[in-house]
Amino acid sequence: MNTTTIKTLKTNGLTEELNRLIGKENVLFTLEDRICYAYDGSKQKYIPDVVALPQSTQHVSDILRFAHKHEIPVCPRGAGSGLTGGAVPVKGGIILDFTQMNHLLEIIPEDLTATVEPGIVTQTFQNKVAQYGLFYPPDPASAPFSTIGGNVAECSGGITGLKYGVTRDYILSLEVALADGSIIHTGRKTLKSVTGYDLTRLFVGSEGTLGVFTQITVKLLPLPEKIEALLIFFAKPQDAVLAANKIISNNLLPRALEFIDKSSIDCVRGYKQEIQIPGEVNAILLIDIDGKETSVKAEASLIEKIVAENHACNVVSAKNPKERDALWEVRRAISPALYHIAPYKINEDICVPRSRILEILDRIADIHKRYPSLKVASFGHIGDGNIHVNVMYDKEEQQQIMAERMIEEILRATVELGGTISGEHGIGNVKSRFLPLEVPPQELQIMKDIKHLLDPKGILNPGKMFG
Amino acid sequence: MNTTTIKTLKTNGLTEELNRLIGKENVLFTLEDRICYAYDGSKQKYIPDVVALPQSTQHVSDILRFAHKHEIPVCPRGAGSGLTGGAVPVKGGIILDFTQMNHLLEIIPEDLTATVEPGIVTQTFQNKVAQYGLFYPPDPASAPFSTIGGNVAECSGGITGLKYGVTRDYILSLEVALADGSIIHTGRKTLKSVTGYDLTRLFVGSEGTLGVFTQITVKLLPLPEKIEALLIFFAKPQDAVLAANKIISNNLLPRALEFIDKSSIDCVRGYKQEIQIPGEVNAILLIDIDGKETSVKAEASLIEKIVAENHACNVVSAKNPKERDALWEVRRAISPALYHIAPYKINEDICVPRSRILEILDRIADIHKRYPSLKVASFGHIGDGNIHVNVMYDKEEQQQIMAERMIEEILRATVELGGTISGEHGIGNVKSRFLPLEVPPQELQIMKDIKHLLDPKGILNPGKMFG
Repeated sequence: MNTTTIKTLKTNGLTEELNRLIGKENVLFTLEDRICYAYDGSKQKYIPDVVALPQSTQHVSDILRFAHKHEIPVCPRGAGSGLTGGAVPVKGGIILDFTQMNHLLEIIPEDLTATVEPGIVTQTFQNKVAQYGLFYPPDPASAPFSTIGGNVAECSGGITGLKYGVTRDYILSLEVALADGSIIHTGRKTLKSVTGYDLTRLFVGSEGTLGVFTQITVKLLPLPEKIEALLIFFAKPQDAVLAANKIISNNLLPRALEFIDKSSIDCVRGYKQEIQIPGEVNAILLIDIDGKETSVKAEASLIEKIVAENHACNVVSAKNPKERDALWEVRRAISPALYHIAPYKINEDICVPRSRILEILDRIADIHKRYPSLKVASFGHIGDGNIHVNVMYDKEEQQQIMAERMIEEILRATVELGGTISGEHGIGNVKSRFLPLEVPPQELQIMKDIKHLLDPKGILNPGKMFG
Repeated sequence: MNTTTIKTLKTNGLTEELNRLIGKENVLFTLEDRICYAYDGSKQKYIPDVVALPQSTQHVSDILRFAHKHEIPVCPRGAGSGLTGGAVPVKGGIILDFTQMNHLLEIIPEDLTATVEPGIVTQTFQNKVAQYGLFYPPDPASAPFSTIGGNVAECSGGITGLKYGVTRDYILSLEVALADGSIIHTGRKTLKSVTGYDLTRLFVGSEGTLGVFTQITVKLLPLPEKIEALLIFFAKPQDAVLAANKIISNNLLPRALEFIDKSSIDCVRGYKQEIQIPGEVNAILLIDIDGKETSVKAEASLIEKIVAENHACNVVSAKNPKERDALWEVRRAISPALYHIAPYKINEDICVPRSRILEILDRIADIHKRYPSLKVASFGHIGDGNIHVNVMYDKEEQQQIMAERMIEEILRATVELGGTISGEHGIGNVKSRFLPLEVPPQELQIMKDIKHLLDPKGILNPGKMFG
C-alpha cells in the first residue's frame, strides 16, 4: 500500500485515469457515491477513493494493471452482503463493483455446466438454471441478493450443505485476473480433471486476496422432482439434537436439517407469521426432503416415525411450495426478530463435528452465565454441525466489549471441540484476529507465502484474512 | 537432487542411517528387495537406493528431515498401481512404502467421518465403513488394491464420478509431512470450514510433490439401500451415446454410467464370462442405479423406457449382488482381454464435456485411420465424459513410436474440444510432457512457484508433474 501515491493520484487524476481505462460512465467518484460502498454486511465503514464498475474481463485487467503499477489497493465487491468485511475497503483504494458483470454466459444442460460472470445474483442464477430442469445447490441465506462471485470468494455454505456440500464442490473452472492484471484460467469445464495442482480451489474461498474472478464455470445437478418440508416441535432441546442424529443414522440425508433454539423461538413467537408455536416448545427442527416423489414420501414417513420416537410434540408438514414457504417463514423470521431483543448482534458461524453439538451448546450456555446481561440465540444447520450463535447487546460500550469477549470464548470452545471458527462466513477483517486460534503458525505462514507469491505488492483486498 | 551426496551416503551408510531412524526391520536395501519397488502401474523401471517402511507419522517426519538435510529424493508409494509413474523413483533415493501405515484410526458414524493412515487399501476401507452402514464413494477401478493415500495423491476418480464426484470432494482434513519433515494439519474434521486458504485441496492431487500424507480424514455418506445394474446393448454406438445423454436430461444421475465400444466388445466376446453378447451389438451401456429401493425401481423402469426409445437391442438387469457382479464382469474383462489383441497398450483417461463425446469419438476414429496398424479400444465413464482410450501395439519399436504419436494427437484433439488430458490418472512423469498442451505457461509457472515454496530443495517425488 502506498497512501502517498493514492493521495497524489487522487489530486492528480485517479478518477481521470479510470475514466480513460473503462469509460467515465463506469466510474463513481463523488463522496455521496463512495459512501454507499463504505459498508457491507459487517456494518463497518471504510470509504473507498473511487468505485469502478467493470463491464468486461478486459476492464478488470486494465484496472488491475494500473493499480498494480501504482500500488493502489483493490477491493472486489459483489452485493456487499458478506458478514466478515470481505467487501469493505479497509485501506481505501479502488472498489471493483461487479454488479454489472452479471451475465449468464453459457448454460449447457447436456454437460450439467454453466458459465457466469461473477456479479450474477445467486438466486437469479438458480432460477435461470431451474428453467432447464437444473439445480445449483449452494444456498446461503443471502442467495436472494448475494452474488456467485461473492459466494465463490467466501466459499459460501448454506442450508443444503449436509446433502449437497458447499460452493467449492460446484466450481469447475475460473477465469481469474491476477494482481498484475494478467488473466489466467484454472481447471477445465469437465466433470473430472487432474492436470497439475488444484488452483481452482486455491482461489475459491480466498476472499479476493489472491485474484479477482471474471468468469466462473459451475457444475449443476438435475433439479429434484419434489421438495417436502417438515417443521417439528420439541419440548426438550436435547431430544431435537438426538432426533437429528437419529435421522442421519437411519441413512437419510435431508436437503436441509435446521435447528432453532428456545431463545430464537421466543423471538419469533408472535412475530408476523402463519405458524403458531405452542408455549411448551423449546426447540424446533425444520427439515427439507427432496428427490423423486416416491422417495420423498417414504423419507418423510420415516422421519415422522423417528422424531415421534424421540419425543417430538408435533409435526407440521408442507407438501406444496406455498405451505413450505410458510414453514420456512419461521426460520427466516429469526434474524429480523432478534433485533426486537437488542439493537446490536454478532452472528457467528461456528461449525463442530455433529457428535459435539450438545457439548458446544452446553459450553455456550456455561459461557453465557458469565455474561448474564447479554442475550444469546442459536440456530442453524445442525445437519452439518454449522450453528449460528447470535450474541445480542445494547450499544453501550461496556456491553459491546463483553459481547466480543464472549464471542472469543465461544470460538475457543469450538476449536477445543474439534470445530472451526467459520463454517461459511469466512474471515475477512472481522475475524482475522481469531484465525490463529484455529490455524497453527506454520500453516498460516504457508498461506501468507502463497499470498505473497500471487500478490507481492499486497494490493488485493489488503487487511483481509491475515489482518 | 544431489546424486553425489546419495552415492556418498550409499557407501557411507544411507541404509545405516535409516536403520537408526526407524529400525532396521523397516528398511529394505538388498537389490532383490529394491527391484520390487522399481515398478508401478506405468511399467517403467527405476531402482530406488533404499526402501523405508514407516510405521508412524514420526518415522515419516524423521526420514524427511534426514532426506531434506542431505537432499535425497523421496518418493512416497501406496500400492504402486498408478498409471502415470507417480510411485517410481525416477531420480533414485528413498521409497516411502506406506503399506504398513494402513490403519483405520477412527470412524465416527454420527459425524459421517473417518480418519485413516494413507496405506489402507481403498476397498478394505470401503468394506469397513459399510459395516457401519456408511459409504466412501470414490471408486477407482484399482480400489481392490490401491490405497487411499495414493488415491488422494492422484485425486482418483472412478465409476461413481457423475453422481458422487471424485476423491477431492471427500477429503476434509490432512496431516501432511512437509519436505523438511515438519508436520502440518490442513482443514478441519467438520463438514464445513472456510478458515484461510484451502491447503487441503492444494495437497489433494499433488502427486507426492508438495508433501506426504500421514493421516487422512474423509467425509462419508449413508450407504445406499439398494444397487441395481442394467447392461444395455446397442447396434449403433451413436444411439448408446445419445441414450446416455437422454438419461441425464431426464433428471437421472446413475451411480455409474459406463460406455463400452465395439473394439472392447469384440475383445471380451468369448472371454470367460456368463453374459453372452449377441453379434449385432456394437456398443454397450452399463448402468448402476442406487438409492432407496422404491426410487431405484422407478429409475430402472424409466431408464429401460429411455433406452428402448433410443434403439437399444436388449437390456439385461441385475437385481441382486450376484447378478450385478456377473454384469460388471463384462466391464472388468476388458482390460485383461485387450492383451489378447496386442501385448502392449497405453491406457489414456481423457475427459471431455459430455456434449463433445460423439465428436471426440469421431476424432479418435479419424486419427486412427492414420495409424492403421495400431488397435484402439475405448470404454469408460461416459456419464462424466471420462473415456479410457486404449492404444495397443506390438513391442516393435516403430509401433511404439506410432502409438505415442497417436496418443499425442488424441490429447491435442481432447484439449481442442475443451477437454482435459487427464480425468483421473494424473500426470506423473508419463504425461508431464503433455501438461503444457492444456495448462498455459503462466498457470504452470504458478504451480512451479508453489512447488518451490513448499519443497525448495526439490526432494519430493522429483521428476513428476512438471518433468
